Amino acid sequence: MPETQQQIQLARRPEGVPVHDDFRFETISVPEPKDGEVLVKTLYVSVDPYMRGRMQDTKSYVEPFALNEALTGGVIAEVISDGAKLKKGDVVIGTLAWQEYSAVSESALRKVDTGIASAQAYLGILGLTGLTAYFGLLDIGRPKKGETVVVSGAAGAVGSAVGQIAKIKGAKVVGIAGSDEKISYLKNELQFDEAINYKTADDIQKALAHACPDGVDVYFDNVGGPISDAVMNLLNDFARIPVCGAISSYNAKSEAEDMGPRVQSKLIKSKALMQGFIASDYSDRFSEGAKQLAEWLKDGKLHDEETVTEGFSNIPDAFLGLFKGENKGKQLIKV
Amino acid sequence: MPETQQQIQLARRPEGVPVHDDFRFETISVPEPKDGEVLVKTLYVSVDPYMRGRMQDTKSYVEPFALNEALTGGVIAEVISDGAKLKKGDVVIGTLAWQEYSAVSESALRKVDTGIASAQAYLGILGLTGLTAYFGLLDIGRPKKGETVVVSGAAGAVGSAVGQIAKIKGAKVVGIAGSDEKISYLKNELQFDEAINYKTADDIQKALAHACPDGVDVYFDNVGGPISDAVMNLLNDFARIPVCGAISSYNAKSEAEDMGPRVQSKLIKSKALMQGFIASDYSDRFSEGAKQLAEWLKDGKLHDEETVTEGFSNIPDAFLGLFKGENKGKQLIKV
Repeated sequence: MPETQQQIQLARRPEGVPVHDDFRFETISVPEPKDGEVLVKTLYVSVDPYMRGRMQDTKSYVEPFALNEALTGGVIAEVISDGAKLKKGDVVIGTLAWQEYSAVSESALRKVDTGIASAQAYLGILGLTGLTAYFGLLDIGRPKKGETVVVSGAAGAVGSAVGQIAKIKGAKVVGIAGSDEKISYLKNELQFDEAINYKTADDIQKALAHACPDGVDVYFDNVGGPISDAVMNLLNDFARIPVCGAISSYNAKSEAEDMGPRVQSKLIKSKALMQGFIASDYSDRFSEGAKQLAEWLKDGKLHDEETVTEGFSNIPDAFLGLFKGENKGKQLIKV
Repeated sequence: MPETQQQIQLARRPEGVPVHDDFRFETISVPEPKDGEVLVKTLYVSVDPYMRGRMQDTKSYVEPFALNEALTGGVIAEVISDGAKLKKGDVVIGTLAWQEYSAVSESALRKVDTGIASAQAYLGILGLTGLTAYFGLLDIGRPKKGETVVVSGAAGAVGSAVGQIAKIKGAKVVGIAGSDEKISYLKNELQFDEAINYKTADDIQKALAHACPDGVDVYFDNVGGPISDAVMNLLNDFARIPVCGAISSYNAKSEAEDMGPRVQSKLIKSKALMQGFIASDYSDRFSEGAKQLAEWLKDGKLHDEETVTEGFSNIPDAFLGLFKGENKGKQLIKV
């Protein structure tokens, strides 16, 4: 057991697009577990777009990260000291600091069943990512058989799950993503009906209209910005829009950098619904969602896609890569 | 009975703000009622902001008005020829052409009970106006006792009903309107808790924040535009936004004239819901709504406010006045 370890702290609040210098690597001691705690070794770290909001000191649905303290997020870890309930070798999930070893209260950890899926799937398709897709699509989006579901950020962690669940429900699925490799993945591996590369399309509005000749019934919005502006022009009557993410605006320095056509007239014309949400709004139904996701995964109806970056020191770069669209599926770091 | 009468037609589709020359007064014959029809004399004509959308040849929730044909809308009329069910002297409501006399199928007319309220109240608080306020506020807005409800276009027909219903439900009501006379009306006659004159407020954002120290739980949006942009910054968690009208954008010639801060990030932060609707989405529940509105009116809990313009020839001007905020409550024309 080493005496010291690395921890990644928030060195300053980013202005616009975050950069490497917004993070600081600090050498700290490996802690001793207190009563009720176990010592765990970090195996996999999840980086997620929503963390950008927590780097700013503004109202959001989660508390901002503190300056000069460790960033935290979803982590898969191995227990390396016996506790009251958890034993050495157990693989657990928790919201932990970005560091190599942590002393954590046993009650803040949940043992994962690696018989069903890989440990890291609990950070993705069987974790908050999958639950976000599941509840946002099914509770707010409510796709019916034969309806057209458009998903932006379609090759990302949540988007790829949304499209697959919409297919399971019998909808026609149109994905929007930012590289030919992702388009090929959506069409050939995930069996999306249509996929649009917004970076190479001459006119995203025309491309969308062509892919959605019957209009749009559900738009699962992961990105905001001009892509969402275009989808808003194709809404069918009583369309539903789960608003999950707005990655295109997370780095805007002010409202003036995130201006677009107002949505009010479009919502009235189509009697459409837009609703912001986060997975934890549905925490009382997590077991239902997790059970269904595990079943679909086991039956081969749902595929778990991960982009795994190796090495603790690469956590900040993997996070920054989310805003450049570098990941396909869930972005993880194997420590 | 005269042989000829005046009819108001759509002479051309307006560009931007409609003007008097977009309408044409045409002399036509007074029709003879056919089998199953009665002849009616127009008493009151309703002009409504949504009609602006129908003057354009674009997708909306109702068919566009045809060029060189009569405009149509809600009308209170008196039956002047006996029919199978309707008798001379009956006062009826229907969607009729803007003309002085009409021959109309009896099945397209509904007799109104002038024992409960004035005939013209059926164009306002007891008609689609009141039902729009009732269902939008109660079904989408769902205000709870003690919550803060903000309504824009608050002195208008729908807005003044919304605020009063929200007060009945025990909410704190903040109205936004465009003249000191309207502000005084909202506070002193309708007992709104706060009212903001957006035309004289130095900073609408600050004025709203001051009027809503506990944030905004329900925003009933009648106007869109910069006023709505400001309200979107004050949403509480799980806020609800019935989107009823966007009068500020109805005269925009293109999307470029109706740009504002995008709403996606704000909806996510607050897990808020925005939903466009029109009263007819609730047509299967109209009798419930009409009954409750009549009861509140009878009990003096709801006040019916009308701005009545005299004279058939003033219909276009009364319609144009809606976009200058000239009306308080429902704008009617007494023919």
